[in-house]
Amino acid sequence: MSYKVTLVGATGAVGREMAAVLAQRGFPVGELRMLASARSAGKTLSWNGREIVVANLDEADFSRGEIVLSSAGGKVSKVFAPRAAAAGAVVIDNTSAFRMVPDVPLVVPEVNPHAAKNHHGIIANPNCSTIQMVVALQPLHAYGRLTRIIVSTYQAVSGAGARAMEELTRETRAHLSGAAPAHDVFPHPIPFNVLPHIGGFLPNGYTEEEMKMVNETRKIMEVPDLAVTATTVRIPAYRGHSESIYIETEKKISADLARQLLSRAPGVVVMDDPTNQLYPQPIIAAGRDETFVGRIREDLSRPTGLNLWCVSDNLRKGAALNAVQIAELLAEKGWLPRG
Amino acid sequence: MSYKVTLVGATGAVGREMAAVLAQRGFPVGELRMLASARSAGKTLSWNGREIVVANLDEADFSRGEIVLSSAGGKVSKVFAPRAAAAGAVVIDNTSAFRMVPDVPLVVPEVNPHAAKNHHGIIANPNCSTIQMVVALQPLHAYGRLTRIIVSTYQAVSGAGARAMEELTRETRAHLSGAAPAHDVFPHPIPFNVLPHIGGFLPNGYTEEEMKMVNETRKIMEVPDLAVTATTVRIPAYRGHSESIYIETEKKISADLARQLLSRAPGVVVMDDPTNQLYPQPIIAAGRDETFVGRIREDLSRPTGLNLWCVSDNLRKGAALNAVQIAELLAEKGWLPRG
Repeated sequence: MSYKVTLVGATGAVGREMAAVLAQRGFPVGELRMLASARSAGKTLSWNGREIVVANLDEADFSRGEIVLSSAGGKVSKVFAPRAAAAGAVVIDNTSAFRMVPDVPLVVPEVNPHAAKNHHGIIANPNCSTIQMVVALQPLHAYGRLTRIIVSTYQAVSGAGARAMEELTRETRAHLSGAAPAHDVFPHPIPFNVLPHIGGFLPNGYTEEEMKMVNETRKIMEVPDLAVTATTVRIPAYRGHSESIYIETEKKISADLARQLLSRAPGVVVMDDPTNQLYPQPIIAAGRDETFVGRIREDLSRPTGLNLWCVSDNLRKGAALNAVQIAELLAEKGWLPRG
Repeated sequence: MSYKVTLVGATGAVGREMAAVLAQRGFPVGELRMLASARSAGKTLSWNGREIVVANLDEADFSRGEIVLSSAGGKVSKVFAPRAAAAGAVVIDNTSAFRMVPDVPLVVPEVNPHAAKNHHGIIANPNCSTIQMVVALQPLHAYGRLTRIIVSTYQAVSGAGARAMEELTRETRAHLSGAAPAHDVFPHPIPFNVLPHIGGFLPNGYTEEEMKMVNETRKIMEVPDLAVTATTVRIPAYRGHSESIYIETEKKISADLARQLLSRAPGVVVMDDPTNQLYPQPIIAAGRDETFVGRIREDLSRPTGLNLWCVSDNLRKGAALNAVQIAELLAEKGWLPRG
């Protein structure tokens, strides 16, 4: 059994990672198509020993039972995804276009795999910062019921795409040569700096990224009124988002119990040995599939408060890997339309 | 009226900044002495047009009414500061050696100037991350009474001294040249990375830096049981610590009111205009005296919750400037022993 798989946005940072993850995990790909905008169409990308010519998304047809992994921007998805779904394809979409649409499943396979079953041709892949947080929190929630999350993020530039990574390298070199700071992708210089600004600002003062962490966490964890506060911040790292997470639960979870619960959890690596200076870091998580959790410590002022530090590769678990895991889930459960 | 002023640890990152701040603010310096370890003694530093030979701290005598600004490490302070105080000098000490000693004042002039009056020859200059946080929170506390602080920091490498700044430059260059990551000052590579580790780890799982933020905040704000949680994190910036701060207060403070209260507060600049992408950043705060506050927004889940983003130069307000301000306070109020 193999599947027709199509990558939309194949030339972007996440698209390339999706192609790599498909090959690394041995997903049963029959035909692989690569689609992108008219600007990128005609480029050749190699994949698993094959050379594949990127085709124009606007001219592409979709077929019944096909799996489409998409990361081409929300506006693009809004146009093509309903068309692909109508043709019987299943679009696993990495943009925010459909995430909060009530009948579109928003899925992290370790957390809410059941939600994927009732799709109507579109399944949303959550926001990168949200994915790693819910992977780390679900085992604690299952035991003690979360009542509060306060998270501050330290997000790598690759979350803003390949051009942002190039900007970090270019501008860091320029900075070290004494050149005046410049920027193009980011609204301010990123080398040796910190920007409390990811996504556009909303009328309530929060950013789009912050509200994604609030709303998507509630939807994935199926706690519609969960009290979530997020401050999302860009820092000069390439890959790997870090998160300082404070939680409160109905039932107390000691630090030791949290370590036990997380050690048994799928997709989680507990890295929490401060005596040996062992804790999660972006350079450890980069290129890895797991969500790393450390600095687990009971709050000193609130009896059911717990603090933890969570790092994961935003291009892997935060995007490409999670999308491929959803495809694997659909294939395994037979939740794809018959071709 | 002028004062005999002595810098201890004159050759370090903070010592140099103290010398610069004394000159920039026109502190009435009569004689200026520079002291350091035997290793650094004999070096010549220029200050305000004078050339000053650094002398050996171990061989130095202290005199009545002299102002000693010290930043030479806790062990050094524990030995020399009592000796200097016994001679009638006043030591304004930037280390953690005396901060939590009950009869040693721990002073941020904008917050608790009155505490400086009852010194016994030693006044402690607080931890850098704590200073900027209490400057930003005191105006809100005065209005609404703080009941909760949860802070995650983004701290610049200069907090670890001049060698740490050199390591960031050297290792960033090496990284961009494809060299293997190395480190000396920090326990792991710092370029393009994030380390949730500042100061040693304590048996309760928190770091020394995190517990400084808890204990020093309580002492300076004079709220012994204030519920403070800190996660302190090193990031690859040179100067300027950033803080994501969540607070709860007894009396609700709207975002607008918080902006008003902070706009009137000494030492604070409100920089909170997201529409124009204006918010505090390390590269804005570096070299500046003020504590910058932005991203002020009401919590969405807790009626008295408020979030803010606070950045200040850790070598200026976080260390040298605050120490010189304490010296100015002592001089202005006549709280120095008569010479």
